[in-house]
Amino acid sequence: MINRFLEVRNQSEILCEPLLIEDYSVQASEFVSPPKWHLAHVTWFWEEFVLTKFDPNYTPYNEEFSFLFNSYYNNVGKRVLRPVRGLMTRPSVQEVYSYRRFVTEAIVNLLSTKLDKEVLDIIEIGINHEQQHQELFVYDIKYILGNQPTFPTYGTGFTPKAINQATEFLKVDSGVYDIGHQGADFSFDNELGNHKVYVTDFEISNNLVSNKEYLEFIEAGGYKDFNFWHDEGWSWINENKIQAPLYWHKIEGEWWNYTLQGLQKVDLTLPVMHLSFYEAFAYSQWKGQRLPTEFEWEIASDKFDWGQLWEWTYSAYLPYPNFSKSPGALGEYNGKFMVNQMVLRGGSVATAAGHSRKTYRNFFHPNMRWQYNGIRLVK
Amino acid sequence: MINRFLEVRNQSEILCEPLLIEDYSVQASEFVSPPKWHLAHVTWFWEEFVLTKFDPNYTPYNEEFSFLFNSYYNNVGKRVLRPVRGLMTRPSVQEVYSYRRFVTEAIVNLLSTKLDKEVLDIIEIGINHEQQHQELFVYDIKYILGNQPTFPTYGTGFTPKAINQATEFLKVDSGVYDIGHQGADFSFDNELGNHKVYVTDFEISNNLVSNKEYLEFIEAGGYKDFNFWHDEGWSWINENKIQAPLYWHKIEGEWWNYTLQGLQKVDLTLPVMHLSFYEAFAYSQWKGQRLPTEFEWEIASDKFDWGQLWEWTYSAYLPYPNFSKSPGALGEYNGKFMVNQMVLRGGSVATAAGHSRKTYRNFFHPNMRWQYNGIRLVK
Amino acid sequence: MINRFLEVRNQSEILCEPLLIEDYSVQASEFVSPPKWHLAHVTWFWEEFVLTKFDPNYTPYNEEFSFLFNSYYNNVGKRVLRPVRGLMTRPSVQEVYSYRRFVTEAIVNLLSTKLDKEVLDIIEIGINHEQQHQELFVYDIKYILGNQPTFPTYGTGFTPKAINQATEFLKVDSGVYDIGHQGADFSFDNELGNHKVYVTDFEISNNLVSNKEYLEFIEAGGYKDFNFWHDEGWSWINENKIQAPLYWHKIEGEWWNYTLQGLQKVDLTLPVMHLSFYEAFAYSQWKGQRLPTEFEWEIASDKFDWGQLWEWTYSAYLPYPNFSKSPGALGEYNGKFMVNQMVLRGGSVATAAGHSRKTYRNFFHPNMRWQYNGIRLVK
Amino acid sequence: MINRFLEVRNQSEILCEPLLIEDYSVQASEFVSPPKWHLAHVTWFWEEFVLTKFDPNYTPYNEEFSFLFNSYYNNVGKRVLRPVRGLMTRPSVQEVYSYRRFVTEAIVNLLSTKLDKEVLDIIEIGINHEQQHQELFVYDIKYILGNQPTFPTYGTGFTPKAINQATEFLKVDSGVYDIGHQGADFSFDNELGNHKVYVTDFEISNNLVSNKEYLEFIEAGGYKDFNFWHDEGWSWINENKIQAPLYWHKIEGEWWNYTLQGLQKVDLTLPVMHLSFYEAFAYSQWKGQRLPTEFEWEIASDKFDWGQLWEWTYSAYLPYPNFSKSPGALGEYNGKFMVNQMVLRGGSVATAAGHSRKTYRNFFHPNMRWQYNGIRLVK
Repeated sequence: MINRFLEVRNQSEILCEPLLIEDYSVQASEFVSPPKWHLAHVTWFWEEFVLTKFDPNYTPYNEEFSFLFNSYYNNVGKRVLRPVRGLMTRPSVQEVYSYRRFVTEAIVNLLSTKLDKEVLDIIEIGINHEQQHQELFVYDIKYILGNQPTFPTYGTGFTPKAINQATEFLKVDSGVYDIGHQGADFSFDNELGNHKVYVTDFEISNNLVSNKEYLEFIEAGGYKDFNFWHDEGWSWINENKIQAPLYWHKIEGEWWNYTLQGLQKVDLTLPVMHLSFYEAFAYSQWKGQRLPTEFEWEIASDKFDWGQLWEWTYSAYLPYPNFSKSPGALGEYNGKFMVNQMVLRGGSVATAAGHSRKTYRNFFHPNMRWQYNGIRLVK
Repeated sequence: MINRFLEVRNQSEILCEPLLIEDYSVQASEFVSPPKWHLAHVTWFWEEFVLTKFDPNYTPYNEEFSFLFNSYYNNVGKRVLRPVRGLMTRPSVQEVYSYRRFVTEAIVNLLSTKLDKEVLDIIEIGINHEQQHQELFVYDIKYILGNQPTFPTYGTGFTPKAINQATEFLKVDSGVYDIGHQGADFSFDNELGNHKVYVTDFEISNNLVSNKEYLEFIEAGGYKDFNFWHDEGWSWINENKIQAPLYWHKIEGEWWNYTLQGLQKVDLTLPVMHLSFYEAFAYSQWKGQRLPTEFEWEIASDKFDWGQLWEWTYSAYLPYPNFSKSPGALGEYNGKFMVNQMVLRGGSVATAAGHSRKTYRNFFHPNMRWQYNGIRLVK
Repeated sequence: MINRFLEVRNQSEILCEPLLIEDYSVQASEFVSPPKWHLAHVTWFWEEFVLTKFDPNYTPYNEEFSFLFNSYYNNVGKRVLRPVRGLMTRPSVQEVYSYRRFVTEAIVNLLSTKLDKEVLDIIEIGINHEQQHQELFVYDIKYILGNQPTFPTYGTGFTPKAINQATEFLKVDSGVYDIGHQGADFSFDNELGNHKVYVTDFEISNNLVSNKEYLEFIEAGGYKDFNFWHDEGWSWINENKIQAPLYWHKIEGEWWNYTLQGLQKVDLTLPVMHLSFYEAFAYSQWKGQRLPTEFEWEIASDKFDWGQLWEWTYSAYLPYPNFSKSPGALGEYNGKFMVNQMVLRGGSVATAAGHSRKTYRNFFHPNMRWQYNGIRLVK
Repeated sequence: MINRFLEVRNQSEILCEPLLIEDYSVQASEFVSPPKWHLAHVTWFWEEFVLTKFDPNYTPYNEEFSFLFNSYYNNVGKRVLRPVRGLMTRPSVQEVYSYRRFVTEAIVNLLSTKLDKEVLDIIEIGINHEQQHQELFVYDIKYILGNQPTFPTYGTGFTPKAINQATEFLKVDSGVYDIGHQGADFSFDNELGNHKVYVTDFEISNNLVSNKEYLEFIEAGGYKDFNFWHDEGWSWINENKIQAPLYWHKIEGEWWNYTLQGLQKVDLTLPVMHLSFYEAFAYSQWKGQRLPTEFEWEIASDKFDWGQLWEWTYSAYLPYPNFSKSPGALGEYNGKFMVNQMVLRGGSVATAAGHSRKTYRNFFHPNMRWQYNGIRLVK
């Protein structure tokens, strides 16, 4: 456990290596958090939910940090509001690293003692929590750099694989299936409540939709015909003047997109990414097909490769039967978001190794598209 | 069919009898439509989808009205945007009534001829459409009058029955059930695609939640403890300073509410009404129970009385398997709203007689509460 | 005095003759008030500042009306906020007329008694106040009708005279001049404090700028070159997509404008009207001339005809030396608006007969243009 | 000239010495600019208006910087919009310093050659421009640090002197006075056009208003009585919940304020600062006195000490007679702001040495209060 813990802690810092000090503090949009905040917040999580609860000798690094780096746990006191996270130039990046070392060491010490299951379970959550923020970090740094006039480069990596097989539709039979997490391994509370779901037969694609295919939709006027769109999606693309995936730029008649390696021509062999649910839905309508439900996806997921990009489903993020939230502040982790969001399944090239699984329920509002997502169709 | 048609047309005008001319044009909020607009819009619907399509001799009453009274059918040309509906003082109320008579007569003439199924189906939709607007009219006139400083009275009626039986929870067994509309009777496209759903066993209340019970929630500090709320619900009540159902006013220590009969003391025996989904959910959390899914509701609906108030379910408004929207402009009726809304089931005292059924799927955004809705719990 | 009072009261109602009941209640923009509100508010003013103060036998028509029809007199209790004035369908138009008759009669009775100067002074203010609202009524009804898709007609009148003399610039010498109201006649408090102002010599046009001249500015790209504009004016025209005076519409290559007689081709011989201060300034810059100060205007006003349109000056609305506001609620009449507004001088075809004079200081925010205004230049 | 130039350039960097890298990029409000941006923008000004125009051998440091660091000169191409200045993490602080060195050296080289008056005049403007940004830098860093939850300290300095003389009112006689800049020394275009102004006799205080006096206003309920306020001021304090000067905090019954030395108890002997024009006006109303006009201030300024804080006048920022803006982009310096702003006169402890003079016209919108300002009264 110590090794796994240290590896995850270390990974958060490896991700920051390409950054300048200047990159750490900025909040490029309300839904983006500054890298410094991610580093400190996950550390605060360890402090708040593990150290102050289970280590009687622990003295917090700085009492103020609980106020500064709480994200949304109302049960743990006041918190800095999301839109002003990017205005906190202090504490410095250096001090945040020092805070990290302090807390990492304290956890290592704690892990060297005999711990009961309750603590180990929360440490498992802490590890998964930090991994989630590692993925958000990738989304956020791409947004921070990709919205600057100079399009700076982050470095290598985080590119999905090209699609290199012919598209086939895989059949799944009608029937009652088991849904949700089973077994003793870690899962979040929103996956629990293993239960039965009846599914009508369907066919699901072995491939994600490619940039090439999505470009056909654009060129066929897909963004100009309201018949393909939800009413809210149509308002949303018009109000925000959206005509292509996020990070795409038409420059002198050619499509480029910003990647962590800088501005590049759109690679037609790659899966299309950075779409809102509205766009994924409109594409499916234009194609005369549809998005899978999260149940269809989970049932069929053994038949195809996944993990390059999170996949929008046409399922709202709702509680499973008999869902019950954890007691205390950790109960705020998932349940309170179960309205107005859509489920994504799978994982992405930005997901920490081993973090996801086929029952994993990711979720975002339908207009969000800075996350690493793509489209898989059903017919 | 002629009689049924005339009855429905007449009912729209009966509802307007208590109105002053001044009441017809105002739009008290973006989600409210002026009474005059309702009267004209349903008439335009008959003109646009029946008369201009199937009566070769029909000349529109006034070409401009298509522009003025289209609601959201993008396929039928430009439309007046929702927020400015209340600024159209012309055409006058008198002219709108004249427009109604002109169109009613033309439909009656058409109905006197031999019509094929395609036309009759659309006439059936037209009747149901006008009934839907009759219900919206009740919501809207209550909002228009109930938000004025003088609290004017509309008239009698539209009050749900008192709860007069002890609360019991009715058991339903696990199993695969049929869901959705079957048979030849009219239904909307969103109810179609009869399909199987597996449901875990549950128990559902025979009663709606009463004002008395809801008041206990208020007095127990339900609006002050974020643990009962969705994150978005918590923001919503705080930003809008919401501490009670819509139309409730605390006056010198006592709760009053605005009804169509004027401002009255809250009647504790009546079912609580005018809640957002957020509030319905928070109440269920506080009670340690939950809202039913729309499938649970439909399966159990033969076991209890319903029809006093629409009932919030914890189901998002999503397409049934094999949902397909109608061709042409009528295809805009339902499908394009299937995101970010929650399903309500049942019917209300403001619903036109015979308009609803147990498979009927009503839907609203989770923050809407001017509609006639209530809470039924499951455990 | 009785005759003058009755004439003014009557004039408010004559202005409403062309209206339908439907036109009385609508508030087409936040800066517009519904006609019904104007009729009731001026009546409330008589009730509040004359009858309840000086007629010991007076019983208010309806206690609630003080709350409903106060405009901005904080000293006289709560008031209905401006943006919701258009949502009050009650009291009815009929009742407002009955309220008017009740108050008119009470004032006539009071005027039949012997009154001291204090009362007569306030009655004089009441008359001028009602006249001001008569002018606002014309602006507002034009806005209400002119922003409807059907462009309904109000009736005849309220059109400025064509410009029928060659433009000349009239010289005024440098020197110290007297500014402000003198003598015993009525004036508002903002004109008082007759004082000296030193003015450098200047030349002022005998004509207002014509539609023909303003069209040259438009066609020369005046709305596209930021060099002519204030920084705020440039933002304002871009945010609001403004490219011509209010009520102008380019239809199939030709300029039309909405008048109270309906939509008509722009008459090139008329003075240009319905401009913001920003546009008036930009035009002057393009022309290489400038707007007069309010002092220049007052000094020169005996040399030219005025009264067709209020004339923007390049003077901010500030207190004269030794300005002192009236005691009590009437002190809120003018002084509290002396920031962020610009002075207009003269009068317009919508101004009540005899209401204005050369020392009269009208004022509006620089982005307002629904009032009857025009441009006179200085070089 | 070389020495003066180098001294001013150096001073900009001295001001940054207490900063962490993290402090350089943040934009704490729309009206605040990041320190990095100030450093780069003033450098761009030298490059754009001096080097590229007058040094034929000059090659810009980086072509992109003109786009990044232009503030509002529409004549010089596209510019980064104000609200996103704080999102540019690149170029780095280090690179901005390198840019500064590059440009400073190029100007020094240019200054070593024989230059004609045109160039020297623009260099003079460049020096004054950089000094203006030094003052804005002080306002901005105070805002950046003073709005963080941890109230970090900047360092010493920038505190006005205590008031240590009894308040007297100094008499000035009526008469015609000369206003505006005269002579060959540098001034901005908005001070030019020396002209005569007639002023009525008045008496002006020898002291600024103190914290002690302003506290009396607060404690007398000054923020709760609309009679002291402009209508817009009253809305502004209520919408923004303003009840004290900027940076004041009531902590356990005592008033503290944030200073560049950290959070300190309010020092009653110091002049009150960080007020909006609305507050300055309300204070004067409560006191039964008034703010001076800018002409009164200029005429009387030889009679009292000034320079601790900019002083709000009750004069709008308008052009002097015969004002003409400079040709080309420098013409955008002042004229286009002459609407909706109020004039402040004097100077402050944050003003660069020798930068101001008695004819200097500073200006801000009436709701701005992060600048170093105070109140002097007239009666």
